[in-house]
Amino acid sequence: MSMITIESLNTASQADFVRALDGTYEHSPWIAERAWGQRPFASLAALKLALVQAVRSATRDEQLALVRAHPELAGKAMVAKALTAESTNEQTTSGLTNCSPEEFAKLQQLNADYNAKFGWPFILAVRGPRGTGLTRAEIIATFERRLAGHPDFELAECLRNIHRIAEMRLDDKFGEAPALGNQVWDWAEKLAEHTDPGYAELGQLTVTYLTDAHRACAQRLSKWMHDCGFDEVSIDAVGNVVGIYHGHDRNAKRLLTGSHYDTVRNGGKYDGRIGILVPMACVRELSAQGKRLPYGFEVVGFAEEEGQRYKATFLGSGALTGHFDERWFEQADADGITMREAMRHAGLCIEDIPKLERDASKYLGFVELHIEQGPVLNELDLPLGIVTSINGSVRYLCEVVGMASHAGTTPMDRRRDAASAVAELALFLEKRAAADGDSVGTIGMLQVPNGSINVVPGRCLFSLDLRAPTDAQRDALVRDVLAEAEAISERRGVGFKAEETLRACAAPSDASWQQRWERAVEALGLPPHRMPSGAGHDAMKLHEVMPQAMLFMRGLNSGISHNPLEAISNDDTELAVRAFQNLLNQLATELT
Amino acid sequence: MSMITIESLNTASQADFVRALDGTYEHSPWIAERAWGQRPFASLAALKLALVQAVRSATRDEQLALVRAHPELAGKAMVAKALTAESTNEQTTSGLTNCSPEEFAKLQQLNADYNAKFGWPFILAVRGPRGTGLTRAEIIATFERRLAGHPDFELAECLRNIHRIAEMRLDDKFGEAPALGNQVWDWAEKLAEHTDPGYAELGQLTVTYLTDAHRACAQRLSKWMHDCGFDEVSIDAVGNVVGIYHGHDRNAKRLLTGSHYDTVRNGGKYDGRIGILVPMACVRELSAQGKRLPYGFEVVGFAEEEGQRYKATFLGSGALTGHFDERWFEQADADGITMREAMRHAGLCIEDIPKLERDASKYLGFVELHIEQGPVLNELDLPLGIVTSINGSVRYLCEVVGMASHAGTTPMDRRRDAASAVAELALFLEKRAAADGDSVGTIGMLQVPNGSINVVPGRCLFSLDLRAPTDAQRDALVRDVLAEAEAISERRGVGFKAEETLRACAAPSDASWQQRWERAVEALGLPPHRMPSGAGHDAMKLHEVMPQAMLFMRGLNSGISHNPLEAISNDDTELAVRAFQNLLNQLATELT
Repeated sequence: MSMITIESLNTASQADFVRALDGTYEHSPWIAERAWGQRPFASLAALKLALVQAVRSATRDEQLALVRAHPELAGKAMVAKALTAESTNEQTTSGLTNCSPEEFAKLQQLNADYNAKFGWPFILAVRGPRGTGLTRAEIIATFERRLAGHPDFELAECLRNIHRIAEMRLDDKFGEAPALGNQVWDWAEKLAEHTDPGYAELGQLTVTYLTDAHRACAQRLSKWMHDCGFDEVSIDAVGNVVGIYHGHDRNAKRLLTGSHYDTVRNGGKYDGRIGILVPMACVRELSAQGKRLPYGFEVVGFAEEEGQRYKATFLGSGALTGHFDERWFEQADADGITMREAMRHAGLCIEDIPKLERDASKYLGFVELHIEQGPVLNELDLPLGIVTSINGSVRYLCEVVGMASHAGTTPMDRRRDAASAVAELALFLEKRAAADGDSVGTIGMLQVPNGSINVVPGRCLFSLDLRAPTDAQRDALVRDVLAEAEAISERRGVGFKAEETLRACAAPSDASWQQRWERAVEALGLPPHRMPSGAGHDAMKLHEVMPQAMLFMRGLNSGISHNPLEAISNDDTELAVRAFQNLLNQLATELT
Repeated sequence: MSMITIESLNTASQADFVRALDGTYEHSPWIAERAWGQRPFASLAALKLALVQAVRSATRDEQLALVRAHPELAGKAMVAKALTAESTNEQTTSGLTNCSPEEFAKLQQLNADYNAKFGWPFILAVRGPRGTGLTRAEIIATFERRLAGHPDFELAECLRNIHRIAEMRLDDKFGEAPALGNQVWDWAEKLAEHTDPGYAELGQLTVTYLTDAHRACAQRLSKWMHDCGFDEVSIDAVGNVVGIYHGHDRNAKRLLTGSHYDTVRNGGKYDGRIGILVPMACVRELSAQGKRLPYGFEVVGFAEEEGQRYKATFLGSGALTGHFDERWFEQADADGITMREAMRHAGLCIEDIPKLERDASKYLGFVELHIEQGPVLNELDLPLGIVTSINGSVRYLCEVVGMASHAGTTPMDRRRDAASAVAELALFLEKRAAADGDSVGTIGMLQVPNGSINVVPGRCLFSLDLRAPTDAQRDALVRDVLAEAEAISERRGVGFKAEETLRACAAPSDASWQQRWERAVEALGLPPHRMPSGAGHDAMKLHEVMPQAMLFMRGLNSGISHNPLEAISNDDTELAVRAFQNLLNQLATELT
């Protein structure tokens, strides 16, 4: 197959266009036909998005026809099993060759169950997010997981997989391998080999502050930074890995970037980490080309953001803003090891912590790339998003105390059911947060302690997490929710208590830096989708001392995060590296 | 003080009546004034109830004035501390003498907190449910517990304590000590000395099937039955304690009664047990008077009703109806001891179990006295209630599966929050059950497994317990609740599963036996308050083979049960014994 180019497609007739893209989407030339009208395409990414948009704006029947145009995965397995030599790249890498009889039977069963539930074939991009193929175990696990889903969601997931298959076919057609994305993806995979004791056996990723795995990650990151060509690499007094790629002038102001390399327990491989690895890839390219920027570029792998081993969230970035809290030293972890002991054990020189505070006047600003950790980009089929603000948030741990009583003998009108009161609040919260459009409110923890099937709940514990893009909006939400909790409690004759455990101010993006990200994304041929960040990030800390703005990358699997299913594709990662390169180049142009 | 009598009061002028009752209620002659209109009183119990009703129908301001007419308990403590010789019986027995400085300070603090919260003095009948006085520790614990309550509830609790104080004052005035009630109360206290290993240290009562404590209880009960004058006493092949008091004719049909002596873990002293001890007191009186009935009277202490050590609920009564399940033999307890081993260890002859099945044609019926285990009688200020039906019930363990996602990053309209779905169902359940009037529905177990403050719940586990006086009413309730669960799940795009774990048929009381209880209660001068039993009882098993009807006794502390706070008063217990005696006498009259 001869390679095609965007230039040739942009000038092709509709018939030639459709012919050139034949095989991208299974037996569905209408997709290319409709996308043709969107020419010219600025990039392959723009073409991919136009094809996606054609499917997005199709009717549900057309979407279902597209799904049904695909052979069943179990059918493929049967073919793969029958073939002694594999005929296509997809089958070679699909992992479905050499199924054991048990696996084959399992797939057949899943297939039957799936068809019975959804009525269309299960579609999975078996080459996976790295393009190198899922294992049979991964395929079966995904099949099982998706079988449990809701039909609406599963149809959308099939379409997303179809787009991913199309994307890889287009990469092949265009001869465009996402080399930079692959590099970052592989680094992340390698870094994920290190996990805390007890988690390796479970196949889970957990890297908490200053454990052996954590220190191994720091070691790897610093080694890779060296290899990338950073001029200075060091592990600082709190364990941050700091790489500096000097500008023409060593004393030039610097652009600061970075994110964290610690994880939550049983977390994902990309949360935080791609915000270190992507700028590393940028430096690697600059260094390989012997190119210097008219400013310094400082990349920091923050040692602690998640607050898992110690309640010291944002310890890493906080050290740079002078907010290291010395009371943390005496905090003990679950094994009774204080942070002071852990730091000494890691050879960190805690006397130097105050020296980590950055002089903001020597910095141009702070940018951070992060996986979205939410479903928005995934649902919109967009690889990148521009953060407008990091939402302000407040958290409470709450308790409702009613009166425990016998479930059989207490008439409905004589109850003080603590859980029903919380149920009423949960529904209010849902409506009230939705009314704002972009506020969110969550009861994530909920339990009736020692609840019995035949006892009316006398106590109910729950958490409240309330967020909004501005502090004023957040505070109005908080006020309404707490007032409603009081009103419900008064009416139901139960007691309500709320203990505030966190209050974080909103961190709106700096307008100039946000615009730089927007231009960087637009230069890729992609729309600059603007969105708030619902999660907190290191940028919130740096926000306190310098202008900041963030770029989000799409998370697969509905953007699930803090979970092993967290995933990114190599193509999206490629786009993230290129966006970051665009930002660096823009800034260089501005400063020269 | 010369004793007064009901006869003299019934013919007294209002002024004399009020004067005679002076001091019964603190500085509140209006109560006696209003009760006077209710003459004649059939009994002291009827007089007490008329006084209670006068307070119940008073305004809230009048009730508050009554409460405020009482001195503060902490003030009493101060007086008690200051006095070297105690001046009144109440102070002697109040336990407030000889307070340590710490206890005194604690009481002062509680008093201050209580006044700040409620604005009226804390009222506690310090002579307690047996009339012999609460300990200082009990007083302080009660004070602390009630301080946490809701004001409406606490006001009612103060009034109940005022009525209890008045009751004991009236007993003194009338020279009527509840000797039979005291006997039963003291037996129950003695029986509660036996508790399973590990619970004694905690001061908790736990008596599970065939433990040493359980066997000691059987031993005590059989000894007491002998002492009471039962003709035959034995421990049967499953551990039931069976006492027979023959009628004139040893072959006469028998009236069967009884309840269980096992307890839940950390349970109460009266659940089940008073249903054995009260009829024992009746036999004791009959025997002391050398009186025989024209029918046999068989009292059974059932060995197992709670299904705690083994999942073998109603084992004791089930053995009498031929429903002992031989599969139970191989069930192991938490320590791996099978029921067969436990029975052998206890010297029970399991071959004889089939012989325990009763020939229903030789019985007149089954009656059971039980503590209500609910708040109804306590709230209505009634000592006894007539059971119309033991509610039918169905239980489910349920799961809602939504999609876990980040609480900050998942917009409200993109969530599949499993807990919100359950919250919606909880509110529906509450309304739907209330609509029936006498159905009940409870979500007693509720939890988001491994919930995190910042994660939208992907899963929520909960239980459903649905009960109604007839099977048809129960089934309609079940149908509506499950249909709503499906509708909510469909709308919210979550999955719902329910596993039925129990289904018990309703057991309506036999009309004739229910009427006998009604007449027995009316003969005490009390109204025959009719009510369903929300809890299951041994009578449910006997219902399968013979007519049955139950009598309920008021539980103090809102009728709390399966809890160490479960309580009954000696006066109520006296009434229960007298009601049972009335029933026995009625039946004797009917049969002669």
